[in-house]
Amino acid sequence: MHPPDPVLRLDEAAQDLLFRQARSADAFTDEPVSDATVEAVHDLVKYGPTAFNQQPLRVVLVRSPESRRRLVGHLARGNREKTARAPLTAVLAVDRDFHTELPRLFPAHPQAADRYYAQRPVREASAVLNGALQAAYFIIGVRAAGLAAGPMSGFDADGVTKEFFTPGRHEVLIVVNIGRPAAHPPRPRGPRLGYGQVFTTV
Amino acid sequence: MHPPDPVLRLDEAAQDLLFRQARSADAFTDEPVSDATVEAVHDLVKYGPTAFNQQPLRVVLVRSPESRRRLVGHLARGNREKTARAPLTAVLAVDRDFHTELPRLFPAHPQAADRYYAQRPVREASAVLNGALQAAYFIIGVRAAGLAAGPMSGFDADGVTKEFFTPGRHEVLIVVNIGRPAAHPPRPRGPRLGYGQVFTTV
Repeated sequence: MHPPDPVLRLDEAAQDLLFRQARSADAFTDEPVSDATVEAVHDLVKYGPTAFNQQPLRVVLVRSPESRRRLVGHLARGNREKTARAPLTAVLAVDRDFHTELPRLFPAHPQAADRYYAQRPVREASAVLNGALQAAYFIIGVRAAGLAAGPMSGFDADGVTKEFFTPGRHEVLIVVNIGRPAAHPPRPRGPRLGYGQVFTTV
Repeated sequence: MHPPDPVLRLDEAAQDLLFRQARSADAFTDEPVSDATVEAVHDLVKYGPTAFNQQPLRVVLVRSPESRRRLVGHLARGNREKTARAPLTAVLAVDRDFHTELPRLFPAHPQAADRYYAQRPVREASAVLNGALQAAYFIIGVRAAGLAAGPMSGFDADGVTKEFFTPGRHEVLIVVNIGRPAAHPPRPRGPRLGYGQVFTTV
């Protein structure tokens, strides 16, 4: 499928599992995804770096039929049925008040929280940026567990926040269906931008 | 160092390389990082998912001494010397006009661009969120190449944008030093939030 890459140190099976063969999924088997599996994913990807080790990501795992109904009502039409049928759905949000934990999380410079995050807009932008990094680590971690992720951006963010989080404090970033993929991906993989379209050397 | 995990399918060497043993680096050996290496990283992590396959990330690789001087002047004091000495520095930004490429990148629904990204604030927020996902994939990819990344958020974003990108169109997210780590990490790894602090099941 692809020539051996002499540059990368990551073995080819891992390259395939995480990136080259992995696809976002719309349909899953009935096989459940346990909290223990999600805990194993977290125990791996929690080491991904964030600025000042801030770790703003907070996740609600939507599992019960009643919770699932509450979530689905806030999704874009095209995301409803696939989410209603997914074994597990993770709502990925950030805690804008992450800075209160920084003295413990970044003990090397306990004053970093006060200085760097004193301004609320700075703090909120930092939460989104670093929470999105952690969301990507989480998607990679789902794949590391041999499962497929189906990340979605089509939902009413205010509605989902009110349903499962604290408005003002939390901001929902992405909703991710998780499970063992049931069938072939819904469509051919879209084209990717080439190296020269993304990178410039100066 | 850690017990075998019966849940994850990713092999332990890969777990160590990407997450468990990997550390952000402040100091590097003199070994250069070639454009070919970065191209191999891109050729792996370009497959990471983004909403509507939008791929907003754009990267300037700062290599020449003159370019490096221009960059370092915009960094927070604490980031200057380590960046001046790094073999290569990548400035990770997003293109807020990514939607002009969507008809080609997401051919399944060519109208998605018009409908979903007609509003500029929606488009700009989407560029940051999805560009941050891609930034995380890139950091993982640097580690997949056996190198260490040193991501930094301390810089004058407007200054860096003016120096290397198009103000208004591009927004700089993170600056990442890249190389082979020279020594032990500068400090012990910070504590990570436990599963129960991040995840709630409903």
